[in-house]
Amino acid sequence: MTQSESSAREAFDRAVAQGRVERLEYDGLTLERCNDDVGHLPRGSIRAAGRVLYGYPHIGRILVLRRGLTEQLAGPFHVEEKINGYNVRIARIDGRLLAFTRGGFVCPFTTDRLPDLLDPAFFDAHPDKVLCAEVAGPGNPWLDASPPFIERDVRLFAFDITEWNRADFLPVNELQTLLEEFALPAVPAWGWSDAEHYDELAARILELNEQGREGLIFRQETPRPRRVKYVTARVNLEDIQRSATRMPDMPAGYFAGRILRIALFLQEHGLDAQPYEEALGQALLGALDDTLTQLQRERRASQPFTCRFRERHNAERLVALLQRVPGHKVKIVIHGIEPEANGYWRLRFERRYPLTNSLLYELLGGGLIYD
Amino acid sequence: MTQSESSAREAFDRAVAQGRVERLEYDGLTLERCNDDVGHLPRGSIRAAGRVLYGYPHIGRILVLRRGLTEQLAGPFHVEEKINGYNVRIARIDGRLLAFTRGGFVCPFTTDRLPDLLDPAFFDAHPDKVLCAEVAGPGNPWLDASPPFIERDVRLFAFDITEWNRADFLPVNELQTLLEEFALPAVPAWGWSDAEHYDELAARILELNEQGREGLIFRQETPRPRRVKYVTARVNLEDIQRSATRMPDMPAGYFAGRILRIALFLQEHGLDAQPYEEALGQALLGALDDTLTQLQRERRASQPFTCRFRERHNAERLVALLQRVPGHKVKIVIHGIEPEANGYWRLRFERRYPLTNSLLYELLGGGLIYD
Repeated sequence: MTQSESSAREAFDRAVAQGRVERLEYDGLTLERCNDDVGHLPRGSIRAAGRVLYGYPHIGRILVLRRGLTEQLAGPFHVEEKINGYNVRIARIDGRLLAFTRGGFVCPFTTDRLPDLLDPAFFDAHPDKVLCAEVAGPGNPWLDASPPFIERDVRLFAFDITEWNRADFLPVNELQTLLEEFALPAVPAWGWSDAEHYDELAARILELNEQGREGLIFRQETPRPRRVKYVTARVNLEDIQRSATRMPDMPAGYFAGRILRIALFLQEHGLDAQPYEEALGQALLGALDDTLTQLQRERRASQPFTCRFRERHNAERLVALLQRVPGHKVKIVIHGIEPEANGYWRLRFERRYPLTNSLLYELLGGGLIYD
Repeated sequence: MTQSESSAREAFDRAVAQGRVERLEYDGLTLERCNDDVGHLPRGSIRAAGRVLYGYPHIGRILVLRRGLTEQLAGPFHVEEKINGYNVRIARIDGRLLAFTRGGFVCPFTTDRLPDLLDPAFFDAHPDKVLCAEVAGPGNPWLDASPPFIERDVRLFAFDITEWNRADFLPVNELQTLLEEFALPAVPAWGWSDAEHYDELAARILELNEQGREGLIFRQETPRPRRVKYVTARVNLEDIQRSATRMPDMPAGYFAGRILRIALFLQEHGLDAQPYEEALGQALLGALDDTLTQLQRERRASQPFTCRFRERHNAERLVALLQRVPGHKVKIVIHGIEPEANGYWRLRFERRYPLTNSLLYELLGGGLIYD
């Protein structure tokens, strides 16, 4: 057994001993899922057939680009676009290609759609490797955000390759060689840079901001691997707009954190604050007004999702997972799984936000609150 | 012993038994202060010389005027202005007139300034009665909000009379008779109304909104005493603007709650949302920008207070109280107590918000956060 194998096994056994591992069945496979960070083993780590697939690590965020780059990164760094989607790890188990969510569940949607998203030849040549990617687009079942350049359905953007039993990732040059060799769709990247090229990087982020794109990841490899992320004011505005429709259900500090990011972004890049102020006020009050109107008209406020599957039973599996993972106690209401003309199946469902519904309904009805 | 006496004594003894009472010394007096709600005894209740001064009760808030009035109040109600200040209870103990904060501390500022705020003749005639009032104005030491119609210093607005050992209040007619008889300054009131006069009440609240005033209290006496409050969109906007300068130190839900109140206000009264959206965005981003600018220039963000005393030793007592009651761990920095030409003493101090300072300073320095 290699050192990384025994270290992965020990880490996972520790998580088991701490009661942090649960057993999952997926289509005849038995998997173990680590449901919390345990030491260096991230939440979402998986064990299958004695091997460990590490959870994807957290990436720190800087809110000020200039000082952030000089303080957090020592050497040159690789500059990559941050895509506004959900994180998956794609791996072959027992001959089957599966996509895992950040939390360590098999994602039936991504798994179903893998043939549309990438060429599996990579895994034929490298069966022990794991591809890490963001899946994004308006047809995804996990989040209502979507990059502006994806008009429908979803796309996949690879950004890392690791392998079973390893907590680290391939260096950028090896990663890019493999992504190109197998024509895997990758996150847009702008090559190597450093903190001295601040003006260029600031221009890049302002361009992304103009386009409503999310931001950048800066990846350093020496003296030690380290990444930081930095996002645009516009994507924070959009987060606020979407989330304001369900304000009572959002976690504490959600809005304050994003408003702070916008203020720091505007100040650092010397942007005219007025259009952002107007957009922020509109995002908050407009979204709430929409929710109140929906509540008064339909007696409930909810958010519709539509996503497309190759196989009907995968849509059913996603439904089962959505209902199993209540994510802040959101209620999932299934509207149906219907065949499309093109051979796909269309799942329509909605997320209902319980606090938003109950609190606003209560208040609209003349309810009293003590604060 | 009357029934109310023994019931007050029992309630206070229960709070003592539960470890919820602390002993305070003030200028030679020994007082007991209840530091949490215990059954029907509110936090801030006081015992002195065997008698109990009940804490001021919480008043519920409606966020929708029309339904709120019909749902929460049964009969006619008395309509009074809600003044944006701090709550005091004024009582005579051992021959001395003292003002208590909502939390049950003697307020050295209010107590010092009582000769400027009201005529004590009321207490000569009614030594066992307690006057409940709001003290408001830019020269107060407790909150940075102030009604727009008070240009300097502070004013007092009485709204209730109770007495030692009693949890209830005088009926409106007796209250008003006494307030007039002793020329005590009172909250503006508009007499009796009911839910059928909604249009009139809505017009009243829109007027207060235009003037930047806080809102209304509706007080019902039959079939049982009950009050509700309803506030304007503008005062919520102002709360947001002031508090956004110290956003990281504000409690969870602070901003969300106020934004929701504004959205409901605009919708109910059919107001054009656009100026409010602009003002809201400006309040949030402008205030943060001010704080960031202050931090970068002065290396700290803080809020200045100036208040005026008749006696220097009362300013010193307030300083001691401010430093004893850290209120969310805010740091108090005293700038000095100086004589004014008119015989008063001027206390200048500032409140420094620790999370705002540490978080923003860290972020401006390029700090990393994980979220």
